[in-house]
Amino acid sequence: MAASMLKRFFWSNRPKAVAFIFESMRTLIAITLLMLAPLAAEQAPRQLNLMPMPSSVQTAAGHLLINQSFSVAVSGYRDGTLERGVERFIAEVSRETGMRLKPTAAQDGNATLVINAEHGSEAVEKLGEDESYELAVSDSGAKLSAANPLGILHGLQTFLQLVETDTDGFSLPVLTIKDQPRFAWRGLLIDVGRHFIPLDVLKRNVDGMAAVKMNVLHLHLSDNEGFRVESKRFPKLHEMGSDGLYYTQTDIRDLVKYARDRGIRVMPEFDIPAHSRSWFVGYPELASTPGTYKIEPGGVDTVMDPTQERTYKFLDKFVAEMATLFPDAYFHIGGDEVNGKPWDDNPKIQAFIHSHKMKNNQDLQAYFNQRLQKILSKRHKIMVGWDEILRPDLPKSIVVQSWRGQQSLATAAQEGFSGMLSFGYYLDLMWPAARHYAVDPMSGAASTLSAEEKSRILGGEACMWGEWISPENIDSRVWPRTAAIAERLWSPQEVQDASSMYTRLDEVAWRLEWLGLTHRSHEVPMLHRMAGVDDIAALRTLADVVEPVKDYTRFENFKGVWDFRAPLNRLIDDANPESETARKFQDLVRKYIQSRYQDRDAEAQIRSSLMAWRDNDGKLEPLVRGSFLLHEIAPLSDELSKLGAAGLVALEYLDKSEVPSESWRAQQLAQADIAKTPKADLLLAVVESVRQLIDATASQSAMSPRK
Amino acid sequence: MAASMLKRFFWSNRPKAVAFIFESMRTLIAITLLMLAPLAAEQAPRQLNLMPMPSSVQTAAGHLLINQSFSVAVSGYRDGTLERGVERFIAEVSRETGMRLKPTAAQDGNATLVINAEHGSEAVEKLGEDESYELAVSDSGAKLSAANPLGILHGLQTFLQLVETDTDGFSLPVLTIKDQPRFAWRGLLIDVGRHFIPLDVLKRNVDGMAAVKMNVLHLHLSDNEGFRVESKRFPKLHEMGSDGLYYTQTDIRDLVKYARDRGIRVMPEFDIPAHSRSWFVGYPELASTPGTYKIEPGGVDTVMDPTQERTYKFLDKFVAEMATLFPDAYFHIGGDEVNGKPWDDNPKIQAFIHSHKMKNNQDLQAYFNQRLQKILSKRHKIMVGWDEILRPDLPKSIVVQSWRGQQSLATAAQEGFSGMLSFGYYLDLMWPAARHYAVDPMSGAASTLSAEEKSRILGGEACMWGEWISPENIDSRVWPRTAAIAERLWSPQEVQDASSMYTRLDEVAWRLEWLGLTHRSHEVPMLHRMAGVDDIAALRTLADVVEPVKDYTRFENFKGVWDFRAPLNRLIDDANPESETARKFQDLVRKYIQSRYQDRDAEAQIRSSLMAWRDNDGKLEPLVRGSFLLHEIAPLSDELSKLGAAGLVALEYLDKSEVPSESWRAQQLAQADIAKTPKADLLLAVVESVRQLIDATASQSAMSPRK
Repeated sequence: MAASMLKRFFWSNRPKAVAFIFESMRTLIAITLLMLAPLAAEQAPRQLNLMPMPSSVQTAAGHLLINQSFSVAVSGYRDGTLERGVERFIAEVSRETGMRLKPTAAQDGNATLVINAEHGSEAVEKLGEDESYELAVSDSGAKLSAANPLGILHGLQTFLQLVETDTDGFSLPVLTIKDQPRFAWRGLLIDVGRHFIPLDVLKRNVDGMAAVKMNVLHLHLSDNEGFRVESKRFPKLHEMGSDGLYYTQTDIRDLVKYARDRGIRVMPEFDIPAHSRSWFVGYPELASTPGTYKIEPGGVDTVMDPTQERTYKFLDKFVAEMATLFPDAYFHIGGDEVNGKPWDDNPKIQAFIHSHKMKNNQDLQAYFNQRLQKILSKRHKIMVGWDEILRPDLPKSIVVQSWRGQQSLATAAQEGFSGMLSFGYYLDLMWPAARHYAVDPMSGAASTLSAEEKSRILGGEACMWGEWISPENIDSRVWPRTAAIAERLWSPQEVQDASSMYTRLDEVAWRLEWLGLTHRSHEVPMLHRMAGVDDIAALRTLADVVEPVKDYTRFENFKGVWDFRAPLNRLIDDANPESETARKFQDLVRKYIQSRYQDRDAEAQIRSSLMAWRDNDGKLEPLVRGSFLLHEIAPLSDELSKLGAAGLVALEYLDKSEVPSESWRAQQLAQADIAKTPKADLLLAVVESVRQLIDATASQSAMSPRK
Repeated sequence: MAASMLKRFFWSNRPKAVAFIFESMRTLIAITLLMLAPLAAEQAPRQLNLMPMPSSVQTAAGHLLINQSFSVAVSGYRDGTLERGVERFIAEVSRETGMRLKPTAAQDGNATLVINAEHGSEAVEKLGEDESYELAVSDSGAKLSAANPLGILHGLQTFLQLVETDTDGFSLPVLTIKDQPRFAWRGLLIDVGRHFIPLDVLKRNVDGMAAVKMNVLHLHLSDNEGFRVESKRFPKLHEMGSDGLYYTQTDIRDLVKYARDRGIRVMPEFDIPAHSRSWFVGYPELASTPGTYKIEPGGVDTVMDPTQERTYKFLDKFVAEMATLFPDAYFHIGGDEVNGKPWDDNPKIQAFIHSHKMKNNQDLQAYFNQRLQKILSKRHKIMVGWDEILRPDLPKSIVVQSWRGQQSLATAAQEGFSGMLSFGYYLDLMWPAARHYAVDPMSGAASTLSAEEKSRILGGEACMWGEWISPENIDSRVWPRTAAIAERLWSPQEVQDASSMYTRLDEVAWRLEWLGLTHRSHEVPMLHRMAGVDDIAALRTLADVVEPVKDYTRFENFKGVWDFRAPLNRLIDDANPESETARKFQDLVRKYIQSRYQDRDAEAQIRSSLMAWRDNDGKLEPLVRGSFLLHEIAPLSDELSKLGAAGLVALEYLDKSEVPSESWRAQQLAQADIAKTPKADLLLAVVESVRQLIDATASQSAMSPRK
C-alpha cells in the first residue's frame, strides 16, 4: 500500500485495530501504538477535527455538501428533548456556516440528515444509560441512529465537529462512526462557593460540556465563603451565608432542565462537616465551636457538630428540600479536609467520642457520614463524597471521588466501592492540557485491578476550584483544557497522542467560542482594562507568552490571608493556563533543531518571534508606567526582552554553524534561569524553548554546515 | 496663561464658553470654534473619554479613587427602575475594574456615590421628559442629582465612562458636569423584518443605546420578507408571514420592560400600505392584487388595498391589539415607497379614486393615512411615518421621519408638523462615522427656520436596515458608529471636532464590548469560518484594511434577485463599515507628510504596515485556495500586496529626499486607481493614504534634506 493510500485509509483501519485491541487487550497495545503513532503524526492535515475521538471511524472517498437546502428529519421516536436538541443543532449549523436554515425539523425522510432514536431516555438521566450512537455520512445524505435521545445528542455534536470549510463549500467527509463512551461518569466540577458564578456563565459551560460529550455538572454549592442556593426551609443559609449572590430555586430548576436537555446530569455538593462556615453565619448552633460567624476572610475555622441531634434534624429537613430541587440520584456531601481541632477543643464532643466508644475524630466523621447516609437514603439519594469518607462500614452503594490519586480509587474499588478520579484533573493547578490528558483513571494502581473491580471505576471529573476565578476568566480556566479531559474519559484508552490532541484541541477551542464561551475573547478586554489605553499590542505580546504559576504557588506567594473579595484583575487573572504561543514556538524550535538548523521557514518564524520579544519592553514601558495594575510586570517584560535578544544571538550562531564561547553560553543559561523565576505570579512560558536554542549552540561543531 | 495651564483649564472654561454661545448664538459660533479647535487637538491626552460630550464640564485638580470599598447610596426618591439601574451600575463598575463590589445600594449617605432623584419618571416614558442630571465628583466622593430616574440613569453612564485606569488605581477626575440632551428624540431603528434579530441581540443593543444616552428603539417589525410579532387576533400574520422567526408577545413585553428600565422607549413600526407582502401570505384579501403570496424573494410586488372597508376593520382590530402590547405613545405606520402600479392595475381601485374625487394615487394614500390616523387616535396613539405621509390635511400631531433630507424636515416644520431626521444616519450605507457625525438635523434648510419651527425638530434616528445583517454582524454595523450619531443628537451643536470624536469613539468601542456587544469580537470567529484553518493571521491582515462597498453598490452589483435567505458569510459580511486600521494609517501618513518626512516614528510605523501588506498575499494564498468563501478575494489580496510594495518605494524616495521619474509616479497612481475598484464588494481602505505617499514624492525637491 502506497504511503498516500496508507494516509487515506488510516481512519478506515483504525476501528478494526481498536476492535482487535479490545479483544486481545494489553499485550497488543504496545505494538498497536507503535503502528499508529507515526501514521497519526504523518497524516495531520487529513485529521478529522473530532474531540473526543470516537471509538470507531471508517472513512471513504467523497463529501456530503452542506448548503442552503440542508434539512433534518426525525424518524422514529421523538420527544421534547430530541426536538429541542435538533433545533439547537440546526441553529449551530447555521452559525457554523453563516447560512440561514429552517429552524425546525423537516417531516420527510429525504432530509439531508435523518435521525432515528428507538425509544426515550429515562425521565431523570441515569448513570450508565446508553449513550452510544452511529453516524453514517454518504455523499447524498447522513443517518444518525441511537437507542435514545442521549445518543442522538452526542451524534449531533459529532456531526457539528465534522463540518468543514473547503474549496467547494461546507461539507462533511463520507464516513461511518460507531461510538460510545469509555466511562459513564464524565464530569466537570464548578466551585461556586468561593466565587459566585452567574447562571448564564454556568449555562455556556454546560454548552461546552455537551460539545465534548461530558455528562455530569457537579456544583460545589457551599463552602466557607458562600452558600449559593436559596433554601426556603432555612433561608438564613443563603441570605446570611452569602454576599447576596446565590441561585434561586427557579434558577436551579432552570439550570437542571437546561442541562438535562443537553444530556447532562446536575449533581449538587454541600460540603460538610468541614468547609461549612457559611452555614454557621445564619445557624451557629450547627457549629462545633460556639460563637458568631461572618462571611469574611480568616475567622474561626470550625466544622459542624456531629454529636448534636439537632444537627441531624436540620440536615434531614435540608436534604428533603434539596433532594426535590436536584432530581439526580447522586448527592455529594463533600466530607473532605476535616480539621480535628474544633472537635478536640470541645469537651462535649470529646465526651461523646468516649461515650460512643470511638477511637478518634475519624470515627466521629464516620459516624456523621453513616447518619448522613441514612438521611440521604430516605430521600432515595446515593451518597458521594471525597476520599476521606471511605470507611468499610458505609454501604457499598456510595461513590468516592478521589482527589488523592489512583491508589485511593483502586483501594475503594477493591473494597467494593464505586469511585471516580479527580486527582490529575484539577484545573486550578494551571497545568498544560497534555499533563491532564496523560492521567488515566485506569492507570497506576488501578491497572492491576480485576475486571469486576475495574467496573467500579465510573470515570472522572475535571475540577474547577473557585479561589481565583471570576465570571470573566472562568471560561479560560475551564476551556479548552477540559476538552482534553473529556476525551480521556470518552475515547478508547489507547487514544493518547498529545500532538494529535493539540491539533484537535485548537480546532475545538474555536468551536467552543461559537457557543458563547469566552476562553479566548476574554483576553483583550481584560488587557484593555489593565492598560487603560487604546493600543494594547505590546501588552498582548507579553500576555501571550506568560502563564500563571502552577500548583498552589499563588497561594504560597500570597501575602496575608487569602481574601475571596480581592479583585481578580491582574495579568495572572487574564493569562491563559497554557500559552498557545509558547507551545507553538516550542514546536518550531523542536522542528528547527530536528532539521539540524536547515528548516528555513521555522527559522524565520522563530526569528520573527524573538525580535518581537526583544523589542517589546520599550513599547510596553509607557503602559506599565501608566497603570497601577501593570507596575508589577515590569521585570517580566524586561526578562522577555533579554530572552529575545539571547535567542537571536543563539540563532545567529546556529545559522552560521558557529560555536560560541563556553562563557557566553553559561552566561545566557544563567540568565534563562533568572527568567524562569516567577514574577507577578507569572511564568515566561518560552524560557525552555530559548534555552534549547542556547543549548544547541554547543553542539554546532558536530553539524554539517548549511547548504 | 501658560500653555500647560491652558490645557488644564480647557475643560473648566468650556462650559462658560458654551453658556455664552447659548446666549448670543450664531454670530459667536465661528469665533468660539476657532478658539476651541486648536485646544482640543493639543490637549488630546488629557481628554475625557465621554461620549456623548456633556453640555458642560468643569474640571479641577485631583481624583476620586475607586477601590474595594466603593459604594452607592440612594437618598431621596427611589423606585424599582432606579434600584435596578443602580444594581446594573454597580455590576458595570465591577466589570470595569475587576473588583467585587456589593451588588446592591448602601443605606448610608457616606457612600462613595450618593444619588438623589427628586421624583419618579412617567409611568410610560414620555417624549420630552426631563433627562438632565448633574454629577459632582470631588476627591472624597461623588453626588449625582436629577429630577427623576431618567436623568440618574444618564448620569450613571457618564460616571462609568469617567472611570480610568491610572498609575495609582482606578479613579475619576474631580469635576462637575451639568448635562441635558439637545434633542428629545434620539433613536435607533432596527429592521427585523428582512432578517430576524433575536431578542438577546436586541437587548445588548439596548444596552449600547443606554450607554450613549439614546432613548428610542424603533423596531421596523414588518416588511415584505417577514412579519415579526405574534398577533393573537390575526395569528396568520406571524405564522404564515414569517419563516417561523418572530417575537412572542411575552418577548415584546420583556423587551419593552428591559428598555424602559434603561430609559428607552420602544416604538413599533408596521410598514403599510407598501412593504407589506408578509401580511398578504395569511390575509391575501388585504392586497390590492388578488392572488396567493409567499415569503420568498421576488414575487408579486403589491400594496394594501385602501379602498376596502375590510382593510380598515382589520387594521382597527390589529392596532387595538398592538396598541396595548406597545405602551409608547407613538406608533409608526411606515408609509414609504408606495408603488402605484398595483392601484393603477386594479379597476375597482381606480373607480374608487374617481368616485371619491381624488386626483391620483397620492390622494388615495392620503385617504388611507387619514383613516389610519383615526384608528390610531382612538387608541391614543400618535402617528409617525416616513416623508411620504406628509400632507397638510393630516393633524399636526403626527410626526414625520425624514429619510429624504433636511429640506423635507424643514418643510414639515414650516407646515406645523413635528419631525426627526434619518437622512444621513443610514447605517447600512457603510459610511464612516465622521460622515454621519457631520450631519445635523438643524443644518441646511432647517438652519433658517424660526425658533418655533425649530422646536418641531425633535431629533433623529440612526437606521439599521436589515437587508444584509445577521445576528452575528449586526453589532458591527450599528457600533461604534451609532455612538457618533448619539453624540450629534445629545451634545451641543458646536461639538463637531471629528478627531476628538474618533479618539473618544475608540474608547467607547471598548466599553461597548464590555456590555456584550460583539462589534469587535465578531470578526475573528467569522474569519475562522471562512478560512476553515487555525492560523488566520494573513486573512485578518487583509480583513482589517477592507471596507464594504458604500451606499447601494452591493445591491447594484447583486446578480439576480436579492434573496434574504442567502448566507451572509462572505468577507464583506464580516468587514467593518469603517476600517480602524486604515483610519489610523491615514493619520500616520498625514502626520508624516506634515512633518515634512521628519517624523521617524510615524515613518517606522508606516513602513511596518506597508511591509506586512506587501508580504501578505503569499501567506494568504493557501487560505484563499482552500476555501470556497475566499476564492473571490484573491484579486483584492493581490492589489493590497502591490499597494504595499508601491508605498514602500515611495517611502524610500521620501526618506532619501529623492524625486522619482514622472513615469514611475504615473504608473503607480494608475495602479492605485485599479486598487480603488471594488472587488468581492469590498474596497481597500488604504488606497488613498498610499496614493498620498506616492503623490508626495513629486514635491520632494522643494523639501529640505533630512537632518
